[in-house]
Amino acid sequence: MVYDNDNVFAKILRGELPAQKVYEDEHTLAFMDIMPRANGHVLVIPKTPARTILDADPAVLGHVITTVQKVAGAVRTAMAADGLTIQQFNESAGGQVVFHLHFHIVPRWEGVAMQPHTGQMEKPEVLAANAEAIRAALA
Amino acid sequence: MVYDNDNVFAKILRGELPAQKVYEDEHTLAFMDIMPRANGHVLVIPKTPARTILDADPAVLGHVITTVQKVAGAVRTAMAADGLTIQQFNESAGGQVVFHLHFHIVPRWEGVAMQPHTGQMEKPEVLAANAEAIRAALA
Repeated sequence: MVYDNDNVFAKILRGELPAQKVYEDEHTLAFMDIMPRANGHVLVIPKTPARTILDADPAVLGHVITTVQKVAGAVRTAMAADGLTIQQFNESAGGQVVFHLHFHIVPRWEGVAMQPHTGQMEKPEVLAANAEAIRAALA
Repeated sequence: MVYDNDNVFAKILRGELPAQKVYEDEHTLAFMDIMPRANGHVLVIPKTPARTILDADPAVLGHVITTVQKVAGAVRTAMAADGLTIQQFNESAGGQVVFHLHFHIVPRWEGVAMQPHTGQMEKPEVLAANAEAIRAALA
């Protein structure tokens, strides 16, 4: 399947759309999901175009999973999470909504179910505060 | 958290429990989930002990995600899937049941919901046939 250069994550990478960033390096970017399944839900993406996990260069994928690991530890600390659910969706049938490869890092707590994907936007001030706490945990 | 050497995936790695293997290399093993969320559900694990994604050596994690990518392509082909859902659960609160790091590769089809985690075991002959089809797609 083709890569659409106008997907929202491509626009975030080009600076055409804002994002609450928590981590960035040469190969990857991590930022707050604006429609979180849990408070502190972060996305990790490669900077190079890839529609799904099947399209990514294995070396790029290695960078992405290293960033997932690093950011996941910070999300756990910052959100005082008991666990973490990591998800990666490929194609619409697989749950994908934005067609640029991404990993979800969802903090979890005992007895708290993951929120459904309602399409509800989180308040910008909540996203900003969570991003700041996660950046602090990374520092 | 500690690593329990008697978890079922450690036993599979030591050959003390059987598994329908689909792929194996120096660092990783992939085999059929015996309680699949969809027909053709595969697990990928590192051969070295790690309880969660947070405990894994980054180099090992790189090998694991490369195997996930390779096997995911074969699952898609073998099961004629429209999409793939990849999941990785950490600690009970995060959905983890077996405490050896693992990635789930779940084939998905348009209009077909993922099956709930019922604890129902799949028939050995179904697992064997799926494993054979996935190995053929890898070859």
